[in-house]
Amino acid sequence: MSEKIQPRLLKGFRDYGPELQIVRSNIFKKIKDVFVRFGFLPMATPVLEYKDILMGKYGEDEKLIYSFKDNGERDVAMRYDLTVPLARFIAQNKNQLTFPFKRYQIAPVWRADNPQKGRLREFYQCDIDAVGTNSELADAEVIVCVCQVLDELGVTDYELRVNNRKIFDTFTDILQADTSQVREIIRAIDKVNKIGKAGVLEILREKNIPQTAIEQVDRYLDLGTGAAALGGLYEQVASGLKPFAEAMQSFINLVVSQGVAPEKILFDPSIARGLDYYTGVVFEVVLKNKPEFGSVASGGRYDNLVDQFSNESLPAVGGSIGIDRLLDALQELGLVKMQNPVKALVLNMDAKLQTDYVQLVSQLREAGINSELYYESAKLDKQFKYAEGKGIEQAIIMGEAEQAAGTVKIKNIKTRQQTEVSREDLLEALQN
Amino acid sequence: MSEKIQPRLLKGFRDYGPELQIVRSNIFKKIKDVFVRFGFLPMATPVLEYKDILMGKYGEDEKLIYSFKDNGERDVAMRYDLTVPLARFIAQNKNQLTFPFKRYQIAPVWRADNPQKGRLREFYQCDIDAVGTNSELADAEVIVCVCQVLDELGVTDYELRVNNRKIFDTFTDILQADTSQVREIIRAIDKVNKIGKAGVLEILREKNIPQTAIEQVDRYLDLGTGAAALGGLYEQVASGLKPFAEAMQSFINLVVSQGVAPEKILFDPSIARGLDYYTGVVFEVVLKNKPEFGSVASGGRYDNLVDQFSNESLPAVGGSIGIDRLLDALQELGLVKMQNPVKALVLNMDAKLQTDYVQLVSQLREAGINSELYYESAKLDKQFKYAEGKGIEQAIIMGEAEQAAGTVKIKNIKTRQQTEVSREDLLEALQN
Repeated sequence: MSEKIQPRLLKGFRDYGPELQIVRSNIFKKIKDVFVRFGFLPMATPVLEYKDILMGKYGEDEKLIYSFKDNGERDVAMRYDLTVPLARFIAQNKNQLTFPFKRYQIAPVWRADNPQKGRLREFYQCDIDAVGTNSELADAEVIVCVCQVLDELGVTDYELRVNNRKIFDTFTDILQADTSQVREIIRAIDKVNKIGKAGVLEILREKNIPQTAIEQVDRYLDLGTGAAALGGLYEQVASGLKPFAEAMQSFINLVVSQGVAPEKILFDPSIARGLDYYTGVVFEVVLKNKPEFGSVASGGRYDNLVDQFSNESLPAVGGSIGIDRLLDALQELGLVKMQNPVKALVLNMDAKLQTDYVQLVSQLREAGINSELYYESAKLDKQFKYAEGKGIEQAIIMGEAEQAAGTVKIKNIKTRQQTEVSREDLLEALQN
Repeated sequence: MSEKIQPRLLKGFRDYGPELQIVRSNIFKKIKDVFVRFGFLPMATPVLEYKDILMGKYGEDEKLIYSFKDNGERDVAMRYDLTVPLARFIAQNKNQLTFPFKRYQIAPVWRADNPQKGRLREFYQCDIDAVGTNSELADAEVIVCVCQVLDELGVTDYELRVNNRKIFDTFTDILQADTSQVREIIRAIDKVNKIGKAGVLEILREKNIPQTAIEQVDRYLDLGTGAAALGGLYEQVASGLKPFAEAMQSFINLVVSQGVAPEKILFDPSIARGLDYYTGVVFEVVLKNKPEFGSVASGGRYDNLVDQFSNESLPAVGGSIGIDRLLDALQELGLVKMQNPVKALVLNMDAKLQTDYVQLVSQLREAGINSELYYESAKLDKQFKYAEGKGIEQAIIMGEAEQAAGTVKIKNIKTRQQTEVSREDLLEALQN
């Protein structure tokens, strides 16, 4: 045998032991149920893609993509999000698909980011997307669905902040259509929650954005949020924005009419989203009691992404829930309850009774009761400790005496209460 | 916008569109339910590991590992199986865990293999393992659990072929304990189903295995399978193998006593398994009607794997179901039924009624009915075609007349039958 290898994890990567993974599995299941209820169906794409598929879509964060040459000298890259592979899939299979195409995907993505609180290098995204429609019903549905997931997960203090990338078109007018400068403005505004307004303006000066545009960003970032900000848009920033403000209000009403609490959705002009591919509605969800976790869900409309792989234009909208960050937050908020789904441990009291034990545990499993048989006829104390350590509720005890009498004892591990029942009554006793 | 990028997949990688992914999701769910019923709890490890964690465990197939230098110049590798990362996790966390440690993991792994029928470069493994026990009850439980999964998936023609690596210890005697030659013998025998007995013996000659050992392999591979082979072991191969044969028979009886049909499990001396880490029981599951798919499940005991990361010895046993290969086989056997879980499509008849439609679909979803609203008020024909294309059963029709009357029409897409009900009765009508 070779030298011992030190067991260790890469920075930014995590193991999820059973306690936490049970919770995650339950969360995934709830999310899937909501997604399907809204008509989004599951789909899967590979972890590895040709590198050129991913390049040129993510803006300055593109450098965080994990890429390498495979054994066949191909340039490959690990999935950075679930949206670009979806666009690739759509372009590749568009003749076989029914549009609008609605899918969900729950899968990990990789970003060689600087690990910090809530920022992992491997993390799960739970995405829904509707491709092949420019209806605002789709935009609203994505947002309603994300809110429904949060509601069903018991997250009560969230706020969905919405904006529309089209608002930045006003800068195209000011800058006489210098779209690369508009992109710089969007990227800078996207950082406002981290670096403040002064920081944003500083970046714009460094990037040589004309003074008139910087002044508009200055007024724009003073707007605040909500209905007042919508009014301020055309009163304080640019009078031409009145139709925009009205459309935004009507869009928010459309979302609210589908059961989203009015106080949970508000216009926020500082929402810009860093990714280059957004073209319309953009949104982020923050936890009011845990703002330090950043956005736990986000999304928006991206009408030109599929075009990059296809001659056919297919407008699309999507949303993504960051479950690892959300789980961290839920844990800190005390909203995570861990529970072992295994209900019973058949104790191994006597090697001679092995056949009886395996038949007993088989009988429980056949009846749909999640159960274990202790593998060794170890000391009872050790077996009880095992049940306790794993949080298994009931121990099933059958020694020689019980075996002869056709009975078993059921012991509640927590209360230490014990009852004896006939083997025929065991299933019923456990199911109650 | 830059040049179009050709949308394409890497060889050996697959997309799973909704139709197939619905089936896969259902299969995953069934597998998880069985795993938990047997007391295996979920766990997750990262896709990327330090490369040295994976090296030296897989035998000659180690060259198939995807490995590269990450942005921080670390040597990293993509998961090749779920067993070695589990051993790493155990060694790293052994003081916090309760043993025996039973977990399941359902996750993809990557192998830069030569793509061929049923051999993908990215594929899912569904693994169960029990770590920290050398009880044969654990060995048997893993096998019973794998069979239970296959039974519940409706796979009826499988055969679980079992052997024990300890049988190859007899070669250590013949070869006077040259363990590296024994490893060569095991690897060669593992190939017998692909290259036949002559091919195996040819390899052994090339590897300069002594003639006495080659002769024993020759006799050994003539044994056939089942009870006759067990008898032949000590009558034709080596008389010292009688206790081995008896223990194997008693092990098979232990499995059968837990509900596995006797004709579904049999001793097969040609089962050796290629991976270096196995030490005891080894098994493979083949489909009798689809032998060309190779093994759809496999596993065994590996008592020395955790040791490679730890000073503490932790014996272990596990099994793995290869779901992608199994799904391909199920499809060919006609056992795959695809069904859209979305039950109703609310038609979009009139832009003026948009608010009514979103409220109608919200009401259905609240009642737990998976449903969609068609996003655009397109021609009815197009909307029906959409429902048909997606396999949605019912269309809900509400035009101005129905809206005024407080009714809706329900149209069965397949039968074209249509009924009109009051809005209050809609939920009940759909649920029936």
